[in-house]
Amino acid sequence: MPDISQRGQQMPPSPIRKLVPYAEAAKKKGVKVYHLNIGQPDIETPKPILDAVRHSEFKVLEYSHSAGNESYRRKLVTYYERFDIQVNHQQIIVTTGGSEAILFSFMACLDAGDEVIVPEPFYANYNGFAVEAGVSIRTITADIETGFALPAMQAFEQAITPRTKAILICNPNNPTGYLYSQEELEVLKQLCLKYNLYLFSDEAYREFCYTGTHFSAMNLEGMDNHVIIMDTISKRYSACGGRIGALVTKNQQVLDAVMKFAQARLSPPSFAQIAGEAAVDLPADYFDGIKAEYLARRDVLVEKLNNIPGVFCPNPGGAFYAMARLPIDDADKFCQWLLDSFSHEQQTVMMAPGTGFYATAGLGKQEVRMAYVLNKEDIAKAMICLEKALEIYPGRTVASAAHAKESSR
Amino acid sequence: MPDISQRGQQMPPSPIRKLVPYAEAAKKKGVKVYHLNIGQPDIETPKPILDAVRHSEFKVLEYSHSAGNESYRRKLVTYYERFDIQVNHQQIIVTTGGSEAILFSFMACLDAGDEVIVPEPFYANYNGFAVEAGVSIRTITADIETGFALPAMQAFEQAITPRTKAILICNPNNPTGYLYSQEELEVLKQLCLKYNLYLFSDEAYREFCYTGTHFSAMNLEGMDNHVIIMDTISKRYSACGGRIGALVTKNQQVLDAVMKFAQARLSPPSFAQIAGEAAVDLPADYFDGIKAEYLARRDVLVEKLNNIPGVFCPNPGGAFYAMARLPIDDADKFCQWLLDSFSHEQQTVMMAPGTGFYATAGLGKQEVRMAYVLNKEDIAKAMICLEKALEIYPGRTVASAAHAKESSR
Repeated sequence: MPDISQRGQQMPPSPIRKLVPYAEAAKKKGVKVYHLNIGQPDIETPKPILDAVRHSEFKVLEYSHSAGNESYRRKLVTYYERFDIQVNHQQIIVTTGGSEAILFSFMACLDAGDEVIVPEPFYANYNGFAVEAGVSIRTITADIETGFALPAMQAFEQAITPRTKAILICNPNNPTGYLYSQEELEVLKQLCLKYNLYLFSDEAYREFCYTGTHFSAMNLEGMDNHVIIMDTISKRYSACGGRIGALVTKNQQVLDAVMKFAQARLSPPSFAQIAGEAAVDLPADYFDGIKAEYLARRDVLVEKLNNIPGVFCPNPGGAFYAMARLPIDDADKFCQWLLDSFSHEQQTVMMAPGTGFYATAGLGKQEVRMAYVLNKEDIAKAMICLEKALEIYPGRTVASAAHAKESSR
Repeated sequence: MPDISQRGQQMPPSPIRKLVPYAEAAKKKGVKVYHLNIGQPDIETPKPILDAVRHSEFKVLEYSHSAGNESYRRKLVTYYERFDIQVNHQQIIVTTGGSEAILFSFMACLDAGDEVIVPEPFYANYNGFAVEAGVSIRTITADIETGFALPAMQAFEQAITPRTKAILICNPNNPTGYLYSQEELEVLKQLCLKYNLYLFSDEAYREFCYTGTHFSAMNLEGMDNHVIIMDTISKRYSACGGRIGALVTKNQQVLDAVMKFAQARLSPPSFAQIAGEAAVDLPADYFDGIKAEYLARRDVLVEKLNNIPGVFCPNPGGAFYAMARLPIDDADKFCQWLLDSFSHEQQTVMMAPGTGFYATAGLGKQEVRMAYVLNKEDIAKAMICLEKALEIYPGRTVASAAHAKESSR
């Protein structure tokens, strides 16, 4: 039997999905599981965009242009204008989800052995695309005490080697919810110009900012040849299954190279491009309601978390994630224990262990990521489960609980 | 400005799409262009499968399972049963087009520097996925005089090195239309068992067989751990824009590895999975009409081609492509000349130059690939254009025309 490849072995399994069998077993036992583990919004996909697909009238489900339908890319230009991002439709390549925008950026800009610097904790699937591209992810650690703000410039400089070719951020951040400020982006700009690096900016959660307005990397002056935006309609319109994203850059060489990767896979999905195009025409106030809902959820989640003895959760400025520190020995054990050994009034909670979001061994063992994609009532119930669980969890670390309490107040 | 990657530079542009600007210019001059250059069927997508999407009633466009909806995979089991291919739904991973099945196979089975043997001429986009995976494609040349039958076993054995890990075929073949026989597949089996190789079998055109029935690599006995099928709904149901394919194998290690790549990109497109699931329920006679239509087109195309002085086209056994030898100096020049310097009664024809389907330099210069995805009348008109063009093309090679005539009759 032929062996699978080294990279097939190195490829990390999804840290978010590996607990699924335990959740399924819990449900079979009649336990209700509150899913705070994945970023699948419960918000309904806006009806007009589903209707655009349902009322479409073509007769042949054809390949689209490899860069996406021109009509959709022209619409996207008007979408970006609303954020004062000035691009033309030839600077946009429609991708199969934000995932493919990440993969294409890695493939077109980095070679095997090249390094990309990512503040940790970070979106775990970056690891997978790095393995596919043979690229090394080097992390610098953001501190929960600062709410996971951008690490100091010196930390970046210490991590830079001759093989470093890019810095990758997610803004606002998954998993921390941190919203990077313009000042922080200016620091990244200095680094990119000084060391001749690309700045990959994953802006999947651009609309979800609660503590300030979003400053896009695309608006850093003098950085046109350095910045590549990775984007997606998944979170914005609760349209994760559409698999439509975009890669946006003003660097013509990158556009030319990415286009070749886009041609090899022929085209992005046609149905969801129709949805994406209709989405740009949603009423201007569409996001107001959505944002208000997420904000209310965040407030419930973060307040309840910080009221649990020994728990600390910084207040996220954007996205719909929060990263909390718990008084526990091992987040992986705890998250599994919640599913296979605990229930409170026949209910429990599923969260993503923090370890999956760090590359540095040992980090994240006391942290969990929660996606506030449930309604407020369910979030409140989930927090009761968490509080009750922490009271009896055998691996509770009283000492660190006290410490956390201390430092968080 | 940071450089793009080596692989971004090595990545080949699509040989099929590079003539597009010349076609657009011709159309602007009022010339009608018969598109025989791409495998985009003109056949209407079956209404029931588009209706399944249009009548879908979900409220949230969610991620599906990373391996595809279980309901769809279970349906696919019944689809494969019709071809006596016995698999269960856990041996099927739904991919984003057949393209992703190719990429995942390369990624999960091959490392950078590993070699895959492909008979040439071959589907040009294999090159792109090979560059992405850092894999080397080694070709052995099939002969137009034999209709592009499988090269002799010795030719494969001469090409095998310690780095060879797989053989890749497309059956029936794009670009040649050749339908491999069970006997030819048995030869590949011997090679794979003797040298411990994977057999990647791209069966995108399984339904389109005219000179015999399809024998799937999956039905080679004793090859369960070697065979990986790459599949797609694109051609089968004229649903190219859906971007739904499948990777099918009984090798559990490969399934486990591919699943990690599938998780990293989250899920295949949801809309088109609905279409794909409905497609399995199309009436049993759905393909009869389609096949009859393609067969009639093939007959018109091949007969008219062989009636043009100096042209030779073997009769394809499947798919909807034909590869013809023309009495010309350079297929790239000729195909461009057809668009920018020729018209007959304000009409011309667009074809894919043969060179793009060969890895060996110099081969394919007298060959073109034609996709018979136009109706018979348009094919006949396109052939008139081709005949008139060959009469006046400045790069016509009279000698080889005579030779071709000789050898083809």
